[in-house]
Amino acid sequence: MAGEVMAAEMAEQPAILRRLLDRRPDLVSRVRAVLPERLTGIVLIARGSSSHAAVFGRYALEAACGRPVALAAPSLHTLYGARIDYRGYLAVGISQSGRTPEIVTVLEHARTAGARTVAVTNEMGSPLAATAEVVLDLGAGGEHAIPATKTFTAQLVAFAVLAEALGEVPWRGDLSDRLSEAVEAVLGDPEPAEQVAGEIGAATGLLSVGRGYLYAVALEAALKLKETIGLLAEGYSAADLLHGPIAVVERGLPVLAFVACGPTRQAMARVVAELRSRGGRVFVAGDEPHANLPVAGLIPEPLVAVPTAVRAQQVAYALAMARGLDPDRRPGLTKVTPTM
Amino acid sequence: MAGEVMAAEMAEQPAILRRLLDRRPDLVSRVRAVLPERLTGIVLIARGSSSHAAVFGRYALEAACGRPVALAAPSLHTLYGARIDYRGYLAVGISQSGRTPEIVTVLEHARTAGARTVAVTNEMGSPLAATAEVVLDLGAGGEHAIPATKTFTAQLVAFAVLAEALGEVPWRGDLSDRLSEAVEAVLGDPEPAEQVAGEIGAATGLLSVGRGYLYAVALEAALKLKETIGLLAEGYSAADLLHGPIAVVERGLPVLAFVACGPTRQAMARVVAELRSRGGRVFVAGDEPHANLPVAGLIPEPLVAVPTAVRAQQVAYALAMARGLDPDRRPGLTKVTPTM
Repeated sequence: MAGEVMAAEMAEQPAILRRLLDRRPDLVSRVRAVLPERLTGIVLIARGSSSHAAVFGRYALEAACGRPVALAAPSLHTLYGARIDYRGYLAVGISQSGRTPEIVTVLEHARTAGARTVAVTNEMGSPLAATAEVVLDLGAGGEHAIPATKTFTAQLVAFAVLAEALGEVPWRGDLSDRLSEAVEAVLGDPEPAEQVAGEIGAATGLLSVGRGYLYAVALEAALKLKETIGLLAEGYSAADLLHGPIAVVERGLPVLAFVACGPTRQAMARVVAELRSRGGRVFVAGDEPHANLPVAGLIPEPLVAVPTAVRAQQVAYALAMARGLDPDRRPGLTKVTPTM
Repeated sequence: MAGEVMAAEMAEQPAILRRLLDRRPDLVSRVRAVLPERLTGIVLIARGSSSHAAVFGRYALEAACGRPVALAAPSLHTLYGARIDYRGYLAVGISQSGRTPEIVTVLEHARTAGARTVAVTNEMGSPLAATAEVVLDLGAGGEHAIPATKTFTAQLVAFAVLAEALGEVPWRGDLSDRLSEAVEAVLGDPEPAEQVAGEIGAATGLLSVGRGYLYAVALEAALKLKETIGLLAEGYSAADLLHGPIAVVERGLPVLAFVACGPTRQAMARVVAELRSRGGRVFVAGDEPHANLPVAGLIPEPLVAVPTAVRAQQVAYALAMARGLDPDRRPGLTKVTPTM
């Protein structure tokens, strides 16, 4: 049946996230054991969905460790032959399969050039895992649908765990229950996503926006919509919205806005109001009472990224179903994508 | 007359780039004078068009100095109150007006927290210039059309100058003549852009792709098309293309591909061939003999970004003219965009 693999993988998320969070103390201590004596910076190495998780990670890790975090430009290593000195750095390679060749190459380069290394992957037996000193195993089980769902939310949580290993984080106590229950609540309530999918209807383009930790969700939502239904969807930072995309919204394009009650809330509320005042059809996903795609409150802001990402998965899934497309197998897309 | 300001500003580019390159020795020695004794990393702070120039800069600077380069996440400073230790870092704030408040704030934070600071700006009297230890003045004169054109290409060249201050660069000798002549040649030959604009026709979406140094041009081309004609255009790294956007291309969307004869050429050729084999309408801009939007050869790869960026400006301009839109004044867009 079309979409059954994607649906089944989405449904596994509460249990996967709970297991990952329950392994926190062990993972935190293993990461701490390999940190440089004096950390000068962090480099994240990723492509595709994993690079969106890394955008979340760059906020969480930089806030926690108080040192700048960079997203690597792999082609500097694989095409330009640049020689980078990574002494004092922690390098984190992120790949669900652990088999994206250039991610492995860049992590190898970083390790040889002095970085301490961590792999975030779903495959303990992969080349990426073999390259890193510590492996943060997602433990999500095999993922077979084209759109990454459970491995993406597991990567977000893996970055939260990494942040804990590095310093102060804005969450406390038994995150495990609250987070898996919030995801469970979203999965048990697909109607709002079906309604938003209905209102998006036959649109051929869409803009998704977020700020801070939820910027990563906006990027990932756009990719899910590209992969599952071929929609020209672009993820944008709400901060950059007035630099051009606003002109696109005025043409009637639907907008998905990801909102969390936290430091970014006011800024996002202003952006949503501005978009609506210009005629934009805006659908809000977040922990607000009147959100079109609501998620539970009581989760600290960074991690609202997780249930809102599941809301985005639901919208992509519902749109695929409505358009008669099979998100499990999309012609021309493969699961492990070698860089061309 | 519609578009006359944008056209006039585009025409100034050869002279501006020549003047900037002629000031190279002075600028290089002033930057060298403030570099940290042991550079551990670089942080670039920018939004909008300037952040696309920074994407070019991150390649040029990282290759030159051999240390990781990060693009700052301003909201960590302005919304989340993160405290980042910048000792050993060079922080570069990039803003044409020098008046984008959050860019000034983040550069100030970085300086207070130990960074050495450079501003890349077109306004010597701006708050950003006042915050930095060294100012790389673009000297581009007032820019009044909504789409940044001459300040963007000047920023690319400013990053090339910064790279020279930091280490080895892949260009030599009298870049000044070759680069300004290449831009002059493009400006004197608008027909290819008019033809591509004609073939793009009434498309409502477009994908622009590039790799390495020309990835920044793909991002900027997409923004120009958003700003000037409200096209839903997305800039994408060619390396990420098979992660989803390929499904969009199969729907017949036009593609602008930016290609340079250098280390990325083979990879880009494979991507263009793949896109065409799947029915994509691909227009190539670059220093290839059969490019739809040709630019002169004999420029080292990184700087092919400059004349190809001018090609993108021409396409945006031609599309605006063809659609009866005025790129000088677009309703709802302003020149200095405060972050919401």
